[in-house]
Amino acid sequence: MDQVKIIEIKKSIFANNDQDAEKLRKELKVKGVYLLNLMSSPGSGKTTTLIQTINRLKDKIKIAVMEADIDSDVDAIKIKEATGIPSIQLHTGGMCHLDAEMTRQGLDNVPMEGVDLVILENVGNLVCPAEFDTGAVRNAMILSVPEGEDKPLKYPLMFSICDVVVINKMDVLPYFDFNLEKCKEYIHMRNPKAQVIPICAKTGEGVDAFAAWLLNQVQEWKKQ
Amino acid sequence: MDQVKIIEIKKSIFANNDQDAEKLRKELKVKGVYLLNLMSSPGSGKTTTLIQTINRLKDKIKIAVMEADIDSDVDAIKIKEATGIPSIQLHTGGMCHLDAEMTRQGLDNVPMEGVDLVILENVGNLVCPAEFDTGAVRNAMILSVPEGEDKPLKYPLMFSICDVVVINKMDVLPYFDFNLEKCKEYIHMRNPKAQVIPICAKTGEGVDAFAAWLLNQVQEWKKQ
Repeated sequence: MDQVKIIEIKKSIFANNDQDAEKLRKELKVKGVYLLNLMSSPGSGKTTTLIQTINRLKDKIKIAVMEADIDSDVDAIKIKEATGIPSIQLHTGGMCHLDAEMTRQGLDNVPMEGVDLVILENVGNLVCPAEFDTGAVRNAMILSVPEGEDKPLKYPLMFSICDVVVINKMDVLPYFDFNLEKCKEYIHMRNPKAQVIPICAKTGEGVDAFAAWLLNQVQEWKKQ
Repeated sequence: MDQVKIIEIKKSIFANNDQDAEKLRKELKVKGVYLLNLMSSPGSGKTTTLIQTINRLKDKIKIAVMEADIDSDVDAIKIKEATGIPSIQLHTGGMCHLDAEMTRQGLDNVPMEGVDLVILENVGNLVCPAEFDTGAVRNAMILSVPEGEDKPLKYPLMFSICDVVVINKMDVLPYFDFNLEKCKEYIHMRNPKAQVIPICAKTGEGVDAFAAWLLNQVQEWKKQ
């Protein structure tokens, strides 16, 4: 099995995370690196979605991934093995989210030469990561069908800060009481501008649309 | 639709939560009230599992429920409508967990006359709730099949503090890559004594075993 670099993240000392996140965003803009912050509940399929998305984009733009988890390095290894792109594991040591300074600790260990896009897979958690700006250009989240359509009602902040909501595991829709139209309605209650993209990461269905959204994001941002 | 009492929980002022949790546990022991802290990821089926469990136990012991959520009151209403037992909603106002003092704020609003068991449905989150002792006699958690068998590897603390792990949504096992034996192995890596109970809350399959565990817990504890 492949080895990946594991970074033990230290607690931030900065008092003003919003300010620090703004600073990081500007530093990354100068370097031409687009940072995407990807969030979700545990087990919604972030890693599988990333593998499918990266394999559609890796010949068009240069990508690196940072996998944040409290423990284990299974996700970073999966990404590296399935896509061949640089992937590092961030261990938060029990911390429930990443802020801008913690994200910077990770970025310092990513081989940045020529990289266009860094994807941060945040800790699996619908609550705390929503409260901390990581310095990313955009926030994306994955909601999976088995979690239920009512999640935007229960976790309002998460849905209000995400520009795109990927609905994963559409293949199991027949086995769950999940109303996609109702879910879209709840998402748009929280963020009227959020794009909603239904996919099945296991089969790859719908992933083209998310990959296209992301590629367009990176290209438009580079022109600015 | 039924109305339920909604309590807006305030941030705790106590510095030492462990001490405060011990105090609350003793207070509840004097009153003869067993407190169960139920945790899980968002959408794992806590509320449905509770409804099934309560309907099996409500003629044997007197039960009340506190539903904690960042926002919304859908769960407390569901419990009240489906079981008829007292159910109140705790709003954490963005906070990602409950500690002992926050739990006490909820308990102060539960009609406690003759109650044997209070079940606290904690905020849907596998990270933060694991770090704060609520004053409960036991911690229980639900892991659902779609979340994947690897969760004990990624969220070690949660699995190490739970005495029982309910594996929910067993009906959809054929549609997911979920190895129950592997999952049990991972759970027991974190907590060798944890009981693992596979169920399907939708159909009620397996819930008898969880209800029996809980009834036995309450009865044995009352004798101590």
